[in-house]
Amino acid sequence: MTDTKHILEAVRDGSMSVEEAELELRSRPFVDLGFARVDTNRRTRQGASEVIYGASKTPEQSLAIARTLMDNGSECVMITRCPRETYDLIVSEGMEAEFRKEARICIVGRIPKAERRSYICVVSAGTSDMPVAEEAAVTAEVMGCNVRRVFDAGVAGIHRLLSDADSIMGASAIVVAAGMEGALPSVVGGLADVPVIAVPTSVGYGASFEGLTALLAMMNSCASTVSVVNIDNGFGAGYIASMIDRRSIQ
Amino acid sequence: MTDTKHILEAVRDGSMSVEEAELELRSRPFVDLGFARVDTNRRTRQGASEVIYGASKTPEQSLAIARTLMDNGSECVMITRCPRETYDLIVSEGMEAEFRKEARICIVGRIPKAERRSYICVVSAGTSDMPVAEEAAVTAEVMGCNVRRVFDAGVAGIHRLLSDADSIMGASAIVVAAGMEGALPSVVGGLADVPVIAVPTSVGYGASFEGLTALLAMMNSCASTVSVVNIDNGFGAGYIASMIDRRSIQ
Amino acid sequence: MTDTKHILEAVRDGSMSVEEAELELRSRPFVDLGFARVDTNRRTRQGASEVIYGASKTPEQSLAIARTLMDNGSECVMITRCPRETYDLIVSEGMEAEFRKEARICIVGRIPKAERRSYICVVSAGTSDMPVAEEAAVTAEVMGCNVRRVFDAGVAGIHRLLSDADSIMGASAIVVAAGMEGALPSVVGGLADVPVIAVPTSVGYGASFEGLTALLAMMNSCASTVSVVNIDNGFGAGYIASMIDRRSIQ
Amino acid sequence: MTDTKHILEAVRDGSMSVEEAELELRSRPFVDLGFARVDTNRRTRQGASEVIYGASKTPEQSLAIARTLMDNGSECVMITRCPRETYDLIVSEGMEAEFRKEARICIVGRIPKAERRSYICVVSAGTSDMPVAEEAAVTAEVMGCNVRRVFDAGVAGIHRLLSDADSIMGASAIVVAAGMEGALPSVVGGLADVPVIAVPTSVGYGASFEGLTALLAMMNSCASTVSVVNIDNGFGAGYIASMIDRRSIQ
Amino acid sequence: MTDTKHILEAVRDGSMSVEEAELELRSRPFVDLGFARVDTNRRTRQGASEVIYGASKTPEQSLAIARTLMDNGSECVMITRCPRETYDLIVSEGMEAEFRKEARICIVGRIPKAERRSYICVVSAGTSDMPVAEEAAVTAEVMGCNVRRVFDAGVAGIHRLLSDADSIMGASAIVVAAGMEGALPSVVGGLADVPVIAVPTSVGYGASFEGLTALLAMMNSCASTVSVVNIDNGFGAGYIASMIDRRSIQ
Amino acid sequence: MTDTKHILEAVRDGSMSVEEAELELRSRPFVDLGFARVDTNRRTRQGASEVIYGASKTPEQSLAIARTLMDNGSECVMITRCPRETYDLIVSEGMEAEFRKEARICIVGRIPKAERRSYICVVSAGTSDMPVAEEAAVTAEVMGCNVRRVFDAGVAGIHRLLSDADSIMGASAIVVAAGMEGALPSVVGGLADVPVIAVPTSVGYGASFEGLTALLAMMNSCASTVSVVNIDNGFGAGYIASMIDRRSIQ
Amino acid sequence: MTDTKHILEAVRDGSMSVEEAELELRSRPFVDLGFARVDTNRRTRQGASEVIYGASKTPEQSLAIARTLMDNGSECVMITRCPRETYDLIVSEGMEAEFRKEARICIVGRIPKAERRSYICVVSAGTSDMPVAEEAAVTAEVMGCNVRRVFDAGVAGIHRLLSDADSIMGASAIVVAAGMEGALPSVVGGLADVPVIAVPTSVGYGASFEGLTALLAMMNSCASTVSVVNIDNGFGAGYIASMIDRRSIQ
Amino acid sequence: MTDTKHILEAVRDGSMSVEEAELELRSRPFVDLGFARVDTNRRTRQGASEVIYGASKTPEQSLAIARTLMDNGSECVMITRCPRETYDLIVSEGMEAEFRKEARICIVGRIPKAERRSYICVVSAGTSDMPVAEEAAVTAEVMGCNVRRVFDAGVAGIHRLLSDADSIMGASAIVVAAGMEGALPSVVGGLADVPVIAVPTSVGYGASFEGLTALLAMMNSCASTVSVVNIDNGFGAGYIASMIDRRSIQ
Repeated sequence: MTDTKHILEAVRDGSMSVEEAELELRSRPFVDLGFARVDTNRRTRQGASEVIYGASKTPEQSLAIARTLMDNGSECVMITRCPRETYDLIVSEGMEAEFRKEARICIVGRIPKAERRSYICVVSAGTSDMPVAEEAAVTAEVMGCNVRRVFDAGVAGIHRLLSDADSIMGASAIVVAAGMEGALPSVVGGLADVPVIAVPTSVGYGASFEGLTALLAMMNSCASTVSVVNIDNGFGAGYIASMIDRRSIQ
Repeated sequence: MTDTKHILEAVRDGSMSVEEAELELRSRPFVDLGFARVDTNRRTRQGASEVIYGASKTPEQSLAIARTLMDNGSECVMITRCPRETYDLIVSEGMEAEFRKEARICIVGRIPKAERRSYICVVSAGTSDMPVAEEAAVTAEVMGCNVRRVFDAGVAGIHRLLSDADSIMGASAIVVAAGMEGALPSVVGGLADVPVIAVPTSVGYGASFEGLTALLAMMNSCASTVSVVNIDNGFGAGYIASMIDRRSIQ
Repeated sequence: MTDTKHILEAVRDGSMSVEEAELELRSRPFVDLGFARVDTNRRTRQGASEVIYGASKTPEQSLAIARTLMDNGSECVMITRCPRETYDLIVSEGMEAEFRKEARICIVGRIPKAERRSYICVVSAGTSDMPVAEEAAVTAEVMGCNVRRVFDAGVAGIHRLLSDADSIMGASAIVVAAGMEGALPSVVGGLADVPVIAVPTSVGYGASFEGLTALLAMMNSCASTVSVVNIDNGFGAGYIASMIDRRSIQ
Repeated sequence: MTDTKHILEAVRDGSMSVEEAELELRSRPFVDLGFARVDTNRRTRQGASEVIYGASKTPEQSLAIARTLMDNGSECVMITRCPRETYDLIVSEGMEAEFRKEARICIVGRIPKAERRSYICVVSAGTSDMPVAEEAAVTAEVMGCNVRRVFDAGVAGIHRLLSDADSIMGASAIVVAAGMEGALPSVVGGLADVPVIAVPTSVGYGASFEGLTALLAMMNSCASTVSVVNIDNGFGAGYIASMIDRRSIQ
Repeated sequence: MTDTKHILEAVRDGSMSVEEAELELRSRPFVDLGFARVDTNRRTRQGASEVIYGASKTPEQSLAIARTLMDNGSECVMITRCPRETYDLIVSEGMEAEFRKEARICIVGRIPKAERRSYICVVSAGTSDMPVAEEAAVTAEVMGCNVRRVFDAGVAGIHRLLSDADSIMGASAIVVAAGMEGALPSVVGGLADVPVIAVPTSVGYGASFEGLTALLAMMNSCASTVSVVNIDNGFGAGYIASMIDRRSIQ
Repeated sequence: MTDTKHILEAVRDGSMSVEEAELELRSRPFVDLGFARVDTNRRTRQGASEVIYGASKTPEQSLAIARTLMDNGSECVMITRCPRETYDLIVSEGMEAEFRKEARICIVGRIPKAERRSYICVVSAGTSDMPVAEEAAVTAEVMGCNVRRVFDAGVAGIHRLLSDADSIMGASAIVVAAGMEGALPSVVGGLADVPVIAVPTSVGYGASFEGLTALLAMMNSCASTVSVVNIDNGFGAGYIASMIDRRSIQ
Repeated sequence: MTDTKHILEAVRDGSMSVEEAELELRSRPFVDLGFARVDTNRRTRQGASEVIYGASKTPEQSLAIARTLMDNGSECVMITRCPRETYDLIVSEGMEAEFRKEARICIVGRIPKAERRSYICVVSAGTSDMPVAEEAAVTAEVMGCNVRRVFDAGVAGIHRLLSDADSIMGASAIVVAAGMEGALPSVVGGLADVPVIAVPTSVGYGASFEGLTALLAMMNSCASTVSVVNIDNGFGAGYIASMIDRRSIQ
Repeated sequence: MTDTKHILEAVRDGSMSVEEAELELRSRPFVDLGFARVDTNRRTRQGASEVIYGASKTPEQSLAIARTLMDNGSECVMITRCPRETYDLIVSEGMEAEFRKEARICIVGRIPKAERRSYICVVSAGTSDMPVAEEAAVTAEVMGCNVRRVFDAGVAGIHRLLSDADSIMGASAIVVAAGMEGALPSVVGGLADVPVIAVPTSVGYGASFEGLTALLAMMNSCASTVSVVNIDNGFGAGYIASMIDRRSIQ
């Protein structure tokens, strides 16, 4: 936005014509690949690499976007919900990449080192919630954060959760992934005074309605620190948590 | 059902005609008041007094049913969701009655003494859940049970709940009333090895959908001991708990 | 919980250091297998063997958990929603196991003998509800209860149900599995004065919404003795019923 | 529709001009009152008097429509969901009318005598369902049918229902009004081999969702003879039942 | 039910002992095949052959039930939602059977001849609704009725529907199968003065919610003659229509 | 948007400073009244006067916005869902205004004359749908269109609708307001080859769910010309129809 | 409709008998293919070729309908949701046809040339929304309109959308296809003063409920120019937009 | 939790008996007022004063809790959804308090001064969303944060929002309150790289379903920075935002 001012000044100074200015204002921020418009200066604007949502793209499309971003200066591109084939194609094209199977994330380039001592805590309720929790954890790591995992800590065995209370209470932000009744964020929220990002998972059967029940329960959490993202959206939760963690050194 | 045999024997013995037997089989079990058919031998069959659902009846109707039951041998009749006017009318007619305001229950006759040492534990999440919890507690008392109350013990302050763990762990059955995210029965269910009757309450706002969210969450409880009754149905929960408690002396 | 006191006493007596006590309080109740934390003293605390939910675990994971439990003193472990492969693996590893096909339950070790004369009655509405009803029945048997089955007894043929009225009326607790309109628990609830655990099944089509209609209907039962568990949750219903039945000998 | 032929013949015979015929085809079937178009030859076409839905009309509007119909040859007009004021206005205008309070129906003119011996049976589950059941019963009476009422016959007390089995089994059509779990039509449908028109009522609380649960349950009835009308639509049920009953003498 | 009287008389006369009578009352009406209880005297009681819901049964189960019924005096048994394999098995066992492919109905034995001149009209909105409409039509034929089909007559081409107005207006009962917006029953209901049984179909996409939208629309029909059965329940609609048609000769 | 260019040119020409330009770009398009930001050059941009949604504003707020608009060159301002008090206040302040009671619209200033011969047809199903239909009709008139009304033309009396077929078939755009089953737009859509804007109304009871059923039915219309606006949104429908009609003279 | 007059005049003149006239009125407008009634004079009545919904038809059925239409004078027939096999069959039968793969549309005959300079703008939010957007665009082209596409212009990157503001602001009508939160139509609606036809897409996961969330959001658009069609109904949106565009030259 | 260690050390040192320690562990953290258990050391544990949810409490109850907190060392207590009477009672009791009418918040004691330069931005869509937005803003102020308000900035007038882009882009966290289609958080999320807490409001009508549509839309936001709290939960959003802002100085 402050760019507007710069462009206007260039117009005033005569170093840019009106037509050029108008064109610049409209066309600069992306590269058009035909099937997608890639935001090449998003890193500057959003403070993080572009993220590619791999589920709805062909391996070729994901590759093309990743390459465009790397060619424009990105050091690390993350492909979420990434099919194995996409990773295989990227590697076969000679690009440096890593595949986190459980999290279904392909990391192109190098994960930045975490430079803060603060960390994010990722808590999950049951074994089945782990893929979503892992997606959140890996996302936060790619965003340059430290992560501590507290998995298989459901509320019906409250002592398991309490045994990890220290990890929970020391975090800068907490991600909680849970399906079924979605009660875990409320209990976790009562233990710590930092934001809790709740991720309902589609784990369960019958009246779990593929995560809707957990989502609604989390929306009604009696803990004031809980906000909620979409069902199975581990990426979003990890991304928001990393934004909060980043403030720790500013 | 075993009555069928008695009647058939009377027919065989000639002490009852076929026509009389047929009439008896069909008409005996209730008294018809015009607006309702009162089940006068239900105490024998169901092991408890008839309960009157006061919300949908005029004071006069509730009075008439209560009187019919007392006249047919009941010692205690409970009127749930009882309007104040109904209680006033019953007392003004010279019947012995007691009004439990918060539970909205009118007790006609005398509450039987609890003869067992076992007890039911009634747990509630927040202040607003208390009327429903009280309805459950009073119902169980009218059914002849001891009751211990653990109120205002929401999951976001888990230490409050744990401070009453003894009461929870020693009960013969537990009723848990909670609104909002409905997480409490899962946590309670993890502490005790007796049936937990969960009552969703209509407490909350927005996405609580007047108790539906709590109901769905409770249906998905990760604790295997939890079953659920209708929203705000404190009576049903207390009634079922009292049935379980009764087995303690058989 | 009373363990807290024992540990505190050990600290006072000097037989345990503060650090050891804190560690003990937090880490004792489970064995961490990496993918799951197994609750090895749950039998004591919950009065029953650990139950493994087989649907979301690989055969290897189920095996590992079952072995850990048996190694820690369990005599019988039940795996619900158990894939055939899991059973095959367990047997091939030399463990004693039995597979109840219709109930989809694998029983590792030996089912305890029922020592009470009381029994649980399991009622189902139609042929399609039988797997869920069987899951409830086998669960109760594994928990050490006697079980009587009354199957294919839908409400549109009320005489079929009445022909088994004796079994229904003599039970210590009743499980009713029904799909479609979910009316059966109300009719059964009117015949007996014991708790009825209703299990909606996903049987039906169109507006049955895979069990939701039956679930809602059961929540609204006009019989005061009915509480409800999740759709197709035969295990939960059988487990709760067995808890009620167990009180019969105390 | 056969009118089309008559008009075409009149055109061919020259007794009607083309313009007149076109006008006739389009404008004949109703009188326009400004706020409503009254169907004055509906009695012929539909075999019954026009019915006025009183709930959404002012007393003056209902009066005007009723008068137009009576002036055009109707002998009996029924106003459903009729406010008391509408009845008072009609009577004060000197028209012959009767008010059935519980059914909320005002009958203008005279109810036709039932000329068949066949009858419709109207069954209701609880006291609160009676207004809807009465609406169905009075509607059928206004349509010239005999009606037998079986009220307060809920499924949790199955013996009450069976005591009236003769009335149910001898009817030409059955209307069943029930709220809460909506199980009654299934049980009734199993007793008789005539069409059962089920009317869900808005009776209940919590998860009854103002009749939606009963509606869905009825849609899933395991009895093949059950069809369903809108929540609280006693009129529609009575009207359809009377159509079926009418065939009895054709 | 009148059987009760006969049995009681036999007891009085000494031709039947009390124990025999009780046994008779409870066990007579069905044959237990293990997986199902077959109602062998249903034809008498319900006025029609037993119908087998083929979708949830193995070919062997359907065969066994059909054979039991035929052996007990049925002349025609209908298997709905019948898999091809079931039909093949039945034929290979030497039983007389016919397969109506589009209606997915297998008819064992012989369809009775229609002896009345009255007929049922089956109307469908679009090509995709035809299987459901055919199921209704064949059911009515198996029940001994004449059927007229008016297919592909959606409301957006109202002239197509009007071109068949004579068939619609002359029927004894009408079945209307429609998906999408479910408007057809209202228009048809305005043309005729007989009961209209509406069958929502799961035809459509997006906000049709697999028939729910059509179901709800039909429940709200402005035509008073419309009642509704479950989504895709062509059988139920045809069955109810045949019951209404049967009254035409009584 | 083309304004951007003008401002850039002014900057280049030196007639505007960079700071002034930036300020202009951001602040020009509205006047801030504290409780609302009034869009004073919207008439130019959107081709119509600002419309005030009166339901959520105090009379004083509506007055202030209307005055600001009139003072900035509007000739006609429409206040929808306008409380009577708001109109009274506006008139008492000496402004020229007209109140259309049934449509709940207050018109400040003068309705522009329709200068085209084309017209919009507004169709409604029942008497209760008239307020919504009127809101659409008056909106279109305020937008300078001719309007023809076809009211009380429900699908169950198809001949009423056909009698006005000429008005429907000659319109430039059609608005259809209907509640209950929402079938009318499909029938109307089959008669004309112009866009049909369907407005579901909250008219009905029970399973009409305050317009949701009509909304869903309309979304599934088998007529390709139907699009839908929010429940009871007569204004939106009239506004869109007027936009379509306006193209008739371009 | 005016045909009615012509037929009546023919009757009056004696050039057509009454029976012929009645037959003509009823049977003329379609050809019956057995599985479908093809509307051969729809082009005249609706101003466009018949459209075949290919998804629910066999290749043979689509071919037969297309041929009937072409034989009766159509110059272009569009088959939507067209399986590849249908196209292959049509071409192998020697008919001229074109297959637009992404839009899943088969065009039989020749697309008419656009004769107006006006155009329709089709906007889509993300890559996954493109098939629906293409369906709308191709439909409009087949209907004889010019189309401009603005794809991959989601609201979270508002600058991408603004860069195409000129295309949006100059259109005669706009189609907006978007899934997930469905926010795009509101933003687009704020930029232009022409009708916006919003198409929710089934793109998304979790709480997108296969397009329902987008549909509901679009119904609630704060832009008055937005109306909505069914989920993924690109055809309908393109068809309505083309109707609006056509007025531009009238 | 670290308290556990201190108490254990005291036991070891003999300065506390086992019984005292057990009592201390369980009873210390709250004061029991009968109707509520007040958490007097929450400030330490949670980093903020206790917040009282005023809507479900009598003025006397709110007063008692506030007084208990102030007496135990709190400097500022906030009562949300506070009825005017509660504020009046508190002031009449001589306590220092301030009432923010639009936000419906009563502040007892003194709002702490903001000591950081960072600020939270609170954005709202329309006039009707202001109470919720104000609740968020005042909450953040009470928590010691600076707040900038950007109100009445709906997406249909995107230029209004862009005019405040600087405020949005410079914030440490953003709260966005919006009803209707709930699109605003997505657009705002595209402008800034900080967490956006979205609050759906119950503003709207018809298919807004009292905020549910906005809630679902926000859950599906295409901006990765958006998480969601319950409908109308301005307090929660402001509280979470303040937690994020607080990290700015650590």
